[in-house]
Amino acid sequence: MSRGFYVGRFQPFHNGHQAVLERIACTADEIIIGIGSAQISHTVANPFTAGERVLMLTRSLEGLECPFYVIPLEDVQRNALWVAHVRSMAPPFDTVYTGNPLVAQLFTEAGVNVRSPEMHERLTHSGTVIRRRMLDGEPWEHLVPPAVVDVIREIHGVERLRQIARSD
Amino acid sequence: MSRGFYVGRFQPFHNGHQAVLERIACTADEIIIGIGSAQISHTVANPFTAGERVLMLTRSLEGLECPFYVIPLEDVQRNALWVAHVRSMAPPFDTVYTGNPLVAQLFTEAGVNVRSPEMHERLTHSGTVIRRRMLDGEPWEHLVPPAVVDVIREIHGVERLRQIARSD
Amino acid sequence: MSRGFYVGRFQPFHNGHQAVLERIACTADEIIIGIGSAQISHTVANPFTAGERVLMLTRSLEGLECPFYVIPLEDVQRNALWVAHVRSMAPPFDTVYTGNPLVAQLFTEAGVNVRSPEMHERLTHSGTVIRRRMLDGEPWEHLVPPAVVDVIREIHGVERLRQIARSD
Amino acid sequence: MSRGFYVGRFQPFHNGHQAVLERIACTADEIIIGIGSAQISHTVANPFTAGERVLMLTRSLEGLECPFYVIPLEDVQRNALWVAHVRSMAPPFDTVYTGNPLVAQLFTEAGVNVRSPEMHERLTHSGTVIRRRMLDGEPWEHLVPPAVVDVIREIHGVERLRQIARSD
Amino acid sequence: MSRGFYVGRFQPFHNGHQAVLERIACTADEIIIGIGSAQISHTVANPFTAGERVLMLTRSLEGLECPFYVIPLEDVQRNALWVAHVRSMAPPFDTVYTGNPLVAQLFTEAGVNVRSPEMHERLTHSGTVIRRRMLDGEPWEHLVPPAVVDVIREIHGVERLRQIARSD
Amino acid sequence: MSRGFYVGRFQPFHNGHQAVLERIACTADEIIIGIGSAQISHTVANPFTAGERVLMLTRSLEGLECPFYVIPLEDVQRNALWVAHVRSMAPPFDTVYTGNPLVAQLFTEAGVNVRSPEMHERLTHSGTVIRRRMLDGEPWEHLVPPAVVDVIREIHGVERLRQIARSD
Repeated sequence: MSRGFYVGRFQPFHNGHQAVLERIACTADEIIIGIGSAQISHTVANPFTAGERVLMLTRSLEGLECPFYVIPLEDVQRNALWVAHVRSMAPPFDTVYTGNPLVAQLFTEAGVNVRSPEMHERLTHSGTVIRRRMLDGEPWEHLVPPAVVDVIREIHGVERLRQIARSD
Repeated sequence: MSRGFYVGRFQPFHNGHQAVLERIACTADEIIIGIGSAQISHTVANPFTAGERVLMLTRSLEGLECPFYVIPLEDVQRNALWVAHVRSMAPPFDTVYTGNPLVAQLFTEAGVNVRSPEMHERLTHSGTVIRRRMLDGEPWEHLVPPAVVDVIREIHGVERLRQIARSD
Repeated sequence: MSRGFYVGRFQPFHNGHQAVLERIACTADEIIIGIGSAQISHTVANPFTAGERVLMLTRSLEGLECPFYVIPLEDVQRNALWVAHVRSMAPPFDTVYTGNPLVAQLFTEAGVNVRSPEMHERLTHSGTVIRRRMLDGEPWEHLVPPAVVDVIREIHGVERLRQIARSD
Repeated sequence: MSRGFYVGRFQPFHNGHQAVLERIACTADEIIIGIGSAQISHTVANPFTAGERVLMLTRSLEGLECPFYVIPLEDVQRNALWVAHVRSMAPPFDTVYTGNPLVAQLFTEAGVNVRSPEMHERLTHSGTVIRRRMLDGEPWEHLVPPAVVDVIREIHGVERLRQIARSD
Repeated sequence: MSRGFYVGRFQPFHNGHQAVLERIACTADEIIIGIGSAQISHTVANPFTAGERVLMLTRSLEGLECPFYVIPLEDVQRNALWVAHVRSMAPPFDTVYTGNPLVAQLFTEAGVNVRSPEMHERLTHSGTVIRRRMLDGEPWEHLVPPAVVDVIREIHGVERLRQIARSD
Repeated sequence: MSRGFYVGRFQPFHNGHQAVLERIACTADEIIIGIGSAQISHTVANPFTAGERVLMLTRSLEGLECPFYVIPLEDVQRNALWVAHVRSMAPPFDTVYTGNPLVAQLFTEAGVNVRSPEMHERLTHSGTVIRRRMLDGEPWEHLVPPAVVDVIREIHGVERLRQIARSD
């Protein structure tokens, strides 16, 4: 059985992530999705908890055509240990899909096969853009899957982000 | 929506865990299963990695009648922070199912509703008994779901346990 | 008995902090003062140790009209655990006094009552301004209670800050 | 000004600790009391949080004849760093009062003056004995100051200890 | 160039270690010696600091016939990360020499070549025996290289061990 | 015996470091070289692992006229504990050689003798300049000892740095 690994911070999970995962879904038997920096929340760059991000991903991916695992990954603060950390927390995998050069370098040095999926509409869909739109009161809902809009409303996510931003 | 939380170390996941989860499945809309001490592996009491345990649970629970989340939980080494840790890593939940008195006490002090499911054939199915049987060369396969037997074979889990036990 | 909680980094404790605490003192039976980032010292933004800050506060507040506790609080590096951390280190409290939006958000999400005291002459008395004045050789003594001047002299605090600043 | 340092886990604070502190109070201008293993709570050997222990000490020592500081000290897990940790968290001190051989050794290697106060009725008053009496339903209230009885009742401390003990 | 890796706690470095290292020295171009649990000191089982152990090893191995590196290795508390930790702290190596079953298992799972050197007079020379002899006032000096006797005398190691042992 | 201590991050070890160490070598019996931030690697400012830096130093200093120790030092994240950390990881020393104001301040507060060696051609040889040259494809080899050029080639260090830099 072939398993692929894909990692992001998903602050929040958006249409760009969704598009990449749908493309990967055709090429592996199962997909493991790592939620990076799982221990960080309530900051302007990382407003949502790991549990909230688990919810965003699981609901948005209900229609995905292959089975998937969602694994929160706390940071280990040491790049040289990160691959071993991921491997201990996730089921075994043989391919890593990433557009992040550091992630690619670390897995390549560890002898793991790395592929770079083209990122769908990267700029418009980046988490940074979405969080800035939330702060500025501009529309952001069309940039994320409908399930993510629901989760963020339930947890009063936009209000949280705006309150936190006043600290800076 | 009502969500229940259940936590264990699952070293390994066995028929007793499976029976409890099947019973809980009737009483909540969704179940969150926390894998405790996720960061520990390769010890006599905790031979399997979190990723291996994710695999055991997900495959064994394929037929469960309600949706479930499997969340690896690293220890925080401070009982007073553990409930907050769990809540940040898991989707929101309203009920905790546990037979562990410390887990019950911590959630009760935090104001969370706790229920104690009767543990099915607790003694015979305990992880301690299963690991001892693996070490002594006695049959253990009938005490765990078939999918767990498969995972442990694939990762050479019994050989690992025996080798580690020689260190003590 | 009603207890209020107030937290700051106090690098150093200054007249603005003193004014806020005197105002709070009228409204609660006892006050708990948390010294945030207790583990950080010998940096340009955080020159003083927790012990030195305990001394500044305790001596400056000798005339306060209600009993108070001074509690050093090491950072936990995870916003989602911070409220549980504070609660485990401090006696029980029912009200939080803070002008910090993040602190307010975290306690509000935890269901704790939060009040925002007006900060007395905030700009002129901020720790940043005082540390800059120390570095530039401008007068700073009138911005802090006399006991703080004494503590900083005894520990050669201005000399330490200037030496550390040369590292940047 | 001479300051003395005394450290314990205070699980709970008892008459033996009280007697030692009253004797030390005559020999120093100020006393610093460190609450060791501050981060540990909700275990059979360490049932109470640091904040609860702060309350026990502060209330019991109201009549002490010299000013005192109560400082929660989280463990650093490295004996070679512990003296530096204590010194950064506490106001400066010149004498350590301890009956603990490891504490004495660490401060002696660091060049700090160490004195060993005779422990008043050590055996009968030890924390271990008090916790066992709580578990066994035997009287324990006469072994601690009245203020400690009050704190433990308010927090339902005996019930917590008994519940936790069922986990072992 | 072939490099071998050998790890121990060396509490203290003794004739058994010396014999193993002399045998390995013939089979590799360079040897890396890891000092395990480097962060632990001042306990009955681990009385010496990493720096003191560096000194013991370096002086005892002056006559070794191949170049060697001595690397203190702090514990990472996670077996699944330990091999990656060692590899990041040490120069690259291709063979591990160990009699420890856990170390052998971890490196084998990581695909590293493991050899088990016969341990020379293991029982008589074990660190546990030497520390017990120090505590009981029995001769221990003949069980360690002369340079180790010198280091332990300079740091008053036996006195430290006896003082610490009184804490238990 | 007099021992000197010198610390750097050595990202990478360069001719400036080499010149300083050769000058210090004349003034002490033995030299201890601490590799700071040992746990950091694979970042633009810290591309090399501690083990790779151990190799660079050891090979470059083969001709040094006094014996030396190379000790990787993980960060402790608390300035107030750093001197105790260094002392526990290194053999005893009496003099610190440093041009870093913070290092000088911390050792001075701890009562250790500090000397400031003039840094040889500081600007041209700084690690920052060398890493920028590697990124820009400019010559850098003349700024480091020949052994460092060899190590960086063997580990494909320039390629790693360029790949990582694409993440920023």
